[in-house]
Amino acid sequence: MRRIPALFAAALVTALVSTVNPVLSQAPASPPRPALVEDLVVANRILANEGVVDGYGHVSVRNPANANRYFLARAGAPALVTAADIVEYDLDSQPASGSGTGYTERFIHGEIYKARTDVTAVVHCHCLDVIPFAAANVPLRPMYHMGYFIGEGVPVFDIRTAAGISDMLVGTPALGQALARVLGRRSAALMRGHGAVVAADSLHVVVAKAYYLNVNARLQSEAMRLRGNGVTYLDPEEAKKAVQTYERSWEFWKSRLPR
Amino acid sequence: MRRIPALFAAALVTALVSTVNPVLSQAPASPPRPALVEDLVVANRILANEGVVDGYGHVSVRNPANANRYFLARAGAPALVTAADIVEYDLDSQPASGSGTGYTERFIHGEIYKARTDVTAVVHCHCLDVIPFAAANVPLRPMYHMGYFIGEGVPVFDIRTAAGISDMLVGTPALGQALARVLGRRSAALMRGHGAVVAADSLHVVVAKAYYLNVNARLQSEAMRLRGNGVTYLDPEEAKKAVQTYERSWEFWKSRLPR
Amino acid sequence: MRRIPALFAAALVTALVSTVNPVLSQAPASPPRPALVEDLVVANRILANEGVVDGYGHVSVRNPANANRYFLARAGAPALVTAADIVEYDLDSQPASGSGTGYTERFIHGEIYKARTDVTAVVHCHCLDVIPFAAANVPLRPMYHMGYFIGEGVPVFDIRTAAGISDMLVGTPALGQALARVLGRRSAALMRGHGAVVAADSLHVVVAKAYYLNVNARLQSEAMRLRGNGVTYLDPEEAKKAVQTYERSWEFWKSRLPR
Amino acid sequence: MRRIPALFAAALVTALVSTVNPVLSQAPASPPRPALVEDLVVANRILANEGVVDGYGHVSVRNPANANRYFLARAGAPALVTAADIVEYDLDSQPASGSGTGYTERFIHGEIYKARTDVTAVVHCHCLDVIPFAAANVPLRPMYHMGYFIGEGVPVFDIRTAAGISDMLVGTPALGQALARVLGRRSAALMRGHGAVVAADSLHVVVAKAYYLNVNARLQSEAMRLRGNGVTYLDPEEAKKAVQTYERSWEFWKSRLPR
Repeated sequence: MRRIPALFAAALVTALVSTVNPVLSQAPASPPRPALVEDLVVANRILANEGVVDGYGHVSVRNPANANRYFLARAGAPALVTAADIVEYDLDSQPASGSGTGYTERFIHGEIYKARTDVTAVVHCHCLDVIPFAAANVPLRPMYHMGYFIGEGVPVFDIRTAAGISDMLVGTPALGQALARVLGRRSAALMRGHGAVVAADSLHVVVAKAYYLNVNARLQSEAMRLRGNGVTYLDPEEAKKAVQTYERSWEFWKSRLPR
Repeated sequence: MRRIPALFAAALVTALVSTVNPVLSQAPASPPRPALVEDLVVANRILANEGVVDGYGHVSVRNPANANRYFLARAGAPALVTAADIVEYDLDSQPASGSGTGYTERFIHGEIYKARTDVTAVVHCHCLDVIPFAAANVPLRPMYHMGYFIGEGVPVFDIRTAAGISDMLVGTPALGQALARVLGRRSAALMRGHGAVVAADSLHVVVAKAYYLNVNARLQSEAMRLRGNGVTYLDPEEAKKAVQTYERSWEFWKSRLPR
Repeated sequence: MRRIPALFAAALVTALVSTVNPVLSQAPASPPRPALVEDLVVANRILANEGVVDGYGHVSVRNPANANRYFLARAGAPALVTAADIVEYDLDSQPASGSGTGYTERFIHGEIYKARTDVTAVVHCHCLDVIPFAAANVPLRPMYHMGYFIGEGVPVFDIRTAAGISDMLVGTPALGQALARVLGRRSAALMRGHGAVVAADSLHVVVAKAYYLNVNARLQSEAMRLRGNGVTYLDPEEAKKAVQTYERSWEFWKSRLPR
Repeated sequence: MRRIPALFAAALVTALVSTVNPVLSQAPASPPRPALVEDLVVANRILANEGVVDGYGHVSVRNPANANRYFLARAGAPALVTAADIVEYDLDSQPASGSGTGYTERFIHGEIYKARTDVTAVVHCHCLDVIPFAAANVPLRPMYHMGYFIGEGVPVFDIRTAAGISDMLVGTPALGQALARVLGRRSAALMRGHGAVVAADSLHVVVAKAYYLNVNARLQSEAMRLRGNGVTYLDPEEAKKAVQTYERSWEFWKSRLPR
């Protein structure tokens, strides 16, 4: 594995930073786990390679050793993230270890982890296929079993409700909280004029839900053109039963990454 | 050929398994033929590389030496299937040789082989382009000679009719039989909220029919947007005459596989 | 250039075949010109790589040394054509040199060369983007200067008019002549339920016209969705003035070929 | 960096040309800066690799050392541009250094630089996604924050107003001036039956605006199909606030270039 040296280096940096820079957080930083960090790097690259994110967007994972911390890359294009870019944040989205400028919208992650103890991983994307649905105010509906979680409903967060006229960015804790409230207990919420946020109980599942959220939107748009309001979606009870692990998708996408 | 050693290894494993594990089936397992297994591996990879399947979906081929057996990969992403993953099943979809967890929906294959002595190969896919047609209940029609087999009609299997509220999966012999009945004597059936199944008299043709089923759906959707119900499809008699071997498509797709 | 040995080999084979097999044609075969043959191989590969053809379709060029002959690959997928596959045909589409089974529809080429002394190169494709237009009977119109030649009009050839119920293939001289009559003096004609034929005065231009015929169809479909019959197309006089050589497209596409 | 020798060679050629060929311009040519030239080469390749241009289209940058000069490749496909192809032009679009045939439409660049002292970089593209909007006379509107600049309005330049029936090309200073007048103080203008022009205050931003102009058009077309005239666009004040540097997009696109 080419990246293992980088992973050990990152762990070392983390240990050093948490030693010499105690003011960054009140509790000592938890050393990142190389395998988890590596998986987070792969998640970043899959999202870029499969077109769920472009130069923008981000994915985080909660620290399994400390539920009050999460890992997220410092600000940069997801396709270019390496283990050395991963920063540990507390749930107020302040860095607990690592260095570099953070994403302006890291509060999306921290506030969802605060509100949702069941959530282990979060994606924010400018997912192209869902943006027209938010703009058109057409609810997403589950088209097939791979989009089963859409049966929970996909609410739309309009930042204007929380912030009035803004730069459209979820750049404060308060806006992160407002977004988390709209998301509620669901897997995904659209962000009007912006993109979407997706939450799940694992890194592999959150990547897949972000991916299939887009696929399902394309299928729904096509079905509505063929039949308008007469489309047959998954029955709500079918959607509840059709839970997916998506593990094969992860293996497939991982195998497609450029070397 | 890089894979020939793996093929011989697979044949050896098969021989060993069928010797030491006679309880797996009543008749001894037929040794897989390296060339056929290799073709099945190529079929898996073509379907993934051409976008007919993603991390999910599967393709099988009947054993030419024993019509009561078929070959299918153990559960895994089609793009990553190797000769060592190929398992021989009896028509009840119980493993006759090979090891590893089987696809939950392998009954699709076994039950179609039981019902259709003319069928030599089967594909199950979450073919994106046809899912809206099933959801919209718009019949597929043959748009051009490459989709000639659509002239036979493409029925829609709604699992709710056979199973009520379910997880959408054809995970039992009874559901496989229900699907086979809807397919009837035709080349393809859609599966509502799920995908499609395609059957043919050769591995090369089943891959091509799955591919062109999708292409034809895209063309039909586009034509219907231009002209609604006024589209001119292939005449049923033209569709019968326009039989294709698709052999050049197979050679083309094979040449495009990543090395 | 990796292919030059193959080109010389092809020339040699041609010379030998035309010596030992004089019954193939009445006049001696013209030796193919390596540079032209190489360009024809590149044309095949560009058409496949840019998605104008898939495993099917073909492109030919008239022999500049003998206007009664043209070069066309023997039957095979365009992406895989090499110099050794190029065959010389007379205008009755009988082989004058070279070997191998010919395309069933080679008469498309021969009959257009007979009818159109201004034509030097011909493409037949199952061009996906134009098939819905023929099926919907919506005339193609020039959307931008790269599709200028569409201003000449793009007639639709319905094989039923010439052959009644058929296998949809232009497999005889008479059908080739019927298609050539529908094409008339224009650059392109659609073939209902099948694809298109494109004719031009050079190999580079015929490839580009086949490519931009498709692009223009996509743009027109999109514009019609936005505005129905209120779309502004190129004025017929603008279309006449906007003649393109497309030479930069050829260089671009050639640079994109897989090595 | 593989190209640095070429860059130094280009600087040398420039110096020689500006010495031996003083009649090309009244003032001595400014030596191009290797880093800027290299960025311009990258801009050309990104535009091609991301599908904003094909074999046609061009991108220029104003000389930061001399506001009366700009750099633009000599006529050729953007994907194939190298540092040696970069030519320096004065604002009348006459070459000040470098050699080779210029783009017929280089006046687009010179006349916009003349009219807009705030503009540092210009793209002309046959951007496929916006051509239907010009043809349908449907105004582009900002769909999400990445397309914020569309909030300024995107006027349509109809060359017929300035030139009557033409070959559609902006091939004279007068036509360049007419286009610059339609563009006004905005970021982008569509060109009916042709493509678009985009202007910005940096090379990275102009590439990104050309890219997101297309993305936004696709999203708008999709939203209008879902909801016609009921789509919610960015509020004009939101659009003003949502300014982007797009720097991460540039890094992402650069990393995707073929080596």
